[in-house]
Amino acid sequence: MQWPEEVTIREVGPRDGLQNLPAFIPTETKIEIIRGLAEAGVTAIEAASFVSPRVVPQMADAGEVLTGLADLPEDVVLSALVLNTRGMARAAGSGVREVMAVVSASEVHHLKNTNKSVDQSLAELQELCFLARDSGVILRGAVAAAFGCPYQGVITSDQVKKVLDPMAEAGIEEITLADTAGMGNPRQVFELLEDITTCYPSIALALHLHDTKGLGLANVMAGLQAGVTILETSFGGLGGCPFVPEAAGNIATEDLVDMLQSMGINTGISLEGVISCTRMMEVLLGKMLPARIR
Amino acid sequence: MQWPEEVTIREVGPRDGLQNLPAFIPTETKIEIIRGLAEAGVTAIEAASFVSPRVVPQMADAGEVLTGLADLPEDVVLSALVLNTRGMARAAGSGVREVMAVVSASEVHHLKNTNKSVDQSLAELQELCFLARDSGVILRGAVAAAFGCPYQGVITSDQVKKVLDPMAEAGIEEITLADTAGMGNPRQVFELLEDITTCYPSIALALHLHDTKGLGLANVMAGLQAGVTILETSFGGLGGCPFVPEAAGNIATEDLVDMLQSMGINTGISLEGVISCTRMMEVLLGKMLPARIR
Repeated sequence: MQWPEEVTIREVGPRDGLQNLPAFIPTETKIEIIRGLAEAGVTAIEAASFVSPRVVPQMADAGEVLTGLADLPEDVVLSALVLNTRGMARAAGSGVREVMAVVSASEVHHLKNTNKSVDQSLAELQELCFLARDSGVILRGAVAAAFGCPYQGVITSDQVKKVLDPMAEAGIEEITLADTAGMGNPRQVFELLEDITTCYPSIALALHLHDTKGLGLANVMAGLQAGVTILETSFGGLGGCPFVPEAAGNIATEDLVDMLQSMGINTGISLEGVISCTRMMEVLLGKMLPARIR
Repeated sequence: MQWPEEVTIREVGPRDGLQNLPAFIPTETKIEIIRGLAEAGVTAIEAASFVSPRVVPQMADAGEVLTGLADLPEDVVLSALVLNTRGMARAAGSGVREVMAVVSASEVHHLKNTNKSVDQSLAELQELCFLARDSGVILRGAVAAAFGCPYQGVITSDQVKKVLDPMAEAGIEEITLADTAGMGNPRQVFELLEDITTCYPSIALALHLHDTKGLGLANVMAGLQAGVTILETSFGGLGGCPFVPEAAGNIATEDLVDMLQSMGINTGISLEGVISCTRMMEVLLGKMLPARIR
């Protein structure tokens, strides 16, 4: 087995973790949490999503959250999720440095997530790229439900490539493969990544894994073996997709940091710093989060 | 990454899972659980331990449990744990087919577990072997705390080999490395197993992992890569060592079966069969067990 010397952890809790919560978290609290994560040494944070406030009211203040964080140190890169050109335009106005365009490998999941077909969203990609370039924003891509769909079941590598092809053609240089429902297994993760790496050698791949069946960290192992060094996690293990029934939270950032540290792999993140963000969230929610490292 | 075609799962719940429970589980119930596991297709079951009934009262009926299961099909191998010659003599009288002698790689853990020094127990090994041979019982070995000790911290491979050497000399052919406190990480598991496999090429190695930090299945991944195909788990994720504070349960049998099945690796075990044993246990205990697959 081979291990990288360091791994970049992108914290997605402020977006993927919060989006599902029924009670609105005040903008100031969101900003405080993101500052806490940055102070813990996290240098990549998915801070919000520019999606319909009617569908995801928790993210209605995405713009205010990002402008409220304009003074963060240069080495902390905030990003936001978008699903279409309207979201892209809002994101560009917020001063965010990176935007992630999400398209699902599953037709049914994509329709529920965006109210569009996969083809409709893929056709919009080139325009998203132009908008991003004009605004000086880096555009990343993400393939949702890349390892399985609760509505469609198995997702083939061809279905994933159907999304990856136009992303690569549009000049996107980093793409996240997301196990949105936590249905992937380590063999599948390794084999899909090997295949994708061979087909798209110039694209940097990130992994976004959910822990529904407790396989999150086992899948990380497979990802590391396939050469992935960018991993998306959520402090406390918050999270789950609003359009995936029973999807458990993401891998907890502190659990991954602890595992990697114990393996001698550097993340630059302070375990105590992340744990104190989790504590704050637990107090706010009045319940324990699923992270193991406490 | 390389994957075996099949994996042997040894169910240790009836021993490692039950030993800590404060209320005595009636002998008939223990027998019923073990029969349920055998019916689920589990062919290796650690059914009891022959230790001091004063120290572990839950195991006081080890002999009755084993004699009550004498009619199980030939392909189901029951085993029992012993710590000394007295336990070995009791085990031999019970008709059990395999006995596992446990010695800890940690001096402090071993003392708490057995009230003896590691050297004292190692000196008894040869006698255990003679007793086993005379009774027609197969003797296996296990190294407890092989990946870390809550009292002593890091365990070196030399400390593990100090236990393995006399076990190998005594002619023991299968040895379990146990992460009794759940302190191991995947890199450590892989590297220790590689080292041990090189030093003791003729010994079959099994892994016994606890899920304290949620690394159980990630450590399984590392074990499979190192060539291990015998894994010890507990139905429902029951378990924990009475002499290791805060040790979480074993990996849940159903979680491992589900992961391996999804990877195309055969275990011969029915997921539904194991889950119904867990249900029975949950009703008995009046609480949910930690297994994810339900």
